Amino acid sequence: MSEFETDTAITPAGHGTYAALVTDRWNAIADRPNGGYLLAIALRAISAELHQPDPLAVSAFFLRPGLNGPATIHTSVVRAGRRISTGEARLEQNGKEIARVVASYTDLGQATGRTELLNAPPDLPAPEDCINPLAGGGLPGVTIADRLELRYAEVPGWFTGRPGNDPRSQFWVRFADGLEADPIALAALVDAAAPAVLDLGVMNSSTIELTVHLRGRPAPGWLACRVSTRHLIDGLHEEDFEIWDSKGNLVAQSRQLGLVTEKG
Amino acid sequence: MSEFETDTAITPAGHGTYAALVTDRWNAIADRPNGGYLLAIALRAISAELHQPDPLAVSAFFLRPGLNGPATIHTSVVRAGRRISTGEARLEQNGKEIARVVASYTDLGQATGRTELLNAPPDLPAPEDCINPLAGGGLPGVTIADRLELRYAEVPGWFTGRPGNDPRSQFWVRFADGLEADPIALAALVDAAAPAVLDLGVMNSSTIELTVHLRGRPAPGWLACRVSTRHLIDGLHEEDFEIWDSKGNLVAQSRQLGLVTEKG
Repeated sequence: MSEFETDTAITPAGHGTYAALVTDRWNAIADRPNGGYLLAIALRAISAELHQPDPLAVSAFFLRPGLNGPATIHTSVVRAGRRISTGEARLEQNGKEIARVVASYTDLGQATGRTELLNAPPDLPAPEDCINPLAGGGLPGVTIADRLELRYAEVPGWFTGRPGNDPRSQFWVRFADGLEADPIALAALVDAAAPAVLDLGVMNSSTIELTVHLRGRPAPGWLACRVSTRHLIDGLHEEDFEIWDSKGNLVAQSRQLGLVTEKG
Repeated sequence: MSEFETDTAITPAGHGTYAALVTDRWNAIADRPNGGYLLAIALRAISAELHQPDPLAVSAFFLRPGLNGPATIHTSVVRAGRRISTGEARLEQNGKEIARVVASYTDLGQATGRTELLNAPPDLPAPEDCINPLAGGGLPGVTIADRLELRYAEVPGWFTGRPGNDPRSQFWVRFADGLEADPIALAALVDAAAPAVLDLGVMNSSTIELTVHLRGRPAPGWLACRVSTRHLIDGLHEEDFEIWDSKGNLVAQSRQLGLVTEKG
């Protein structure tokens, strides 16, 4: 099993409750698991309760920082429908709720209807012609950086300590161990890269709410990402994220609201 | 009291439960209340349970079409915090859940921190120099059109039966009875205009999930809106919506995932 599958595995504990272990392999800062990783664990539990295979619309409210260690996920079915079903999960650690997740599921393989696009995939050179910003080594404490491979055409300034004041970037991503992403992995990946707002020179950002819309099952291969923050207002910012697969199809679109921490 | 305040009023029924009446004055199509209106009722109930005054991040999953008639809203406090609190509401009609809403609240008047914008308000002529697309009368069954005043610089083609294949537009909006919008009203208004995707010639769209981020308390006056759909994929589309107040500040930003109904 891949690292991601192993580290998001859930064990049924009856009555819609599941146990999981939040490992230290997906930390975004020292000792703090990435929110997208926690979301993936919650989605594994919701998946086990619904008939449809794929998350379609997902909203996660992050209530407290997560921890490395055991977690309990309480799920409930909100509505079981023929085409779309909706479930809810409360992810708890040490008796406190860390994240509240609501998700509607469908069978993305059965989706039919018209397609019209007013947007195009990120305009990136082939991954082998791009730059690996972590070629010189990982980031201290940021273990999630060891689980992913990133390739940039232009590396954002903050990576080298010189924020460029442009919180928009495009890059390739894939799992370092070769796992091909499924829709649950996409829901994690939209939150897996460092926040674009770092290029404004802020120290960090914590997610308040993250919505992911899964727009298709990804083809195998590198995933092209486009991320931007256009409005930082009173310390709060949105981050918009798109993931396009190797065939040039949009497969995930997300927005999160985050609160920045300024450098001390 | 204004129409909006009257029609979103809630009556406590004990233990976090509230009663409301879904009137027929905010119907988006015949006999079907607008989703944003239902969301506003749910937010009134969550507001009554939390200490902070303003919704900040709101996610609503629409499970079944709403009805004109009585509704019951069951609320629970997810987390009561010092700066941010989170609540949940289940809006039920005839014993069936219509909408599941999770919302984090804060005091938007107390928000402090850096502001950096990479976007500008919609570039619209003054409202008095714009076109009222409903000057010739309302739309049959669409009673919400009688509650709002709209002003366009360019009226989308679908308004006159000739879709222009451009699902992007900008317009002014305000309540017809003079009510000045508060953040809960903004959460309704992001869903109150006809979907931009109509300009692709589809018959209608039903919302699966709607996320609203409230970015500030609006100044009095007309509100400038920017709406777009950039990806219709297999019949599913996002709709992005921004509301800017009369002082040129972004006050609400939303995205919804909808499922289109084709004509014929």
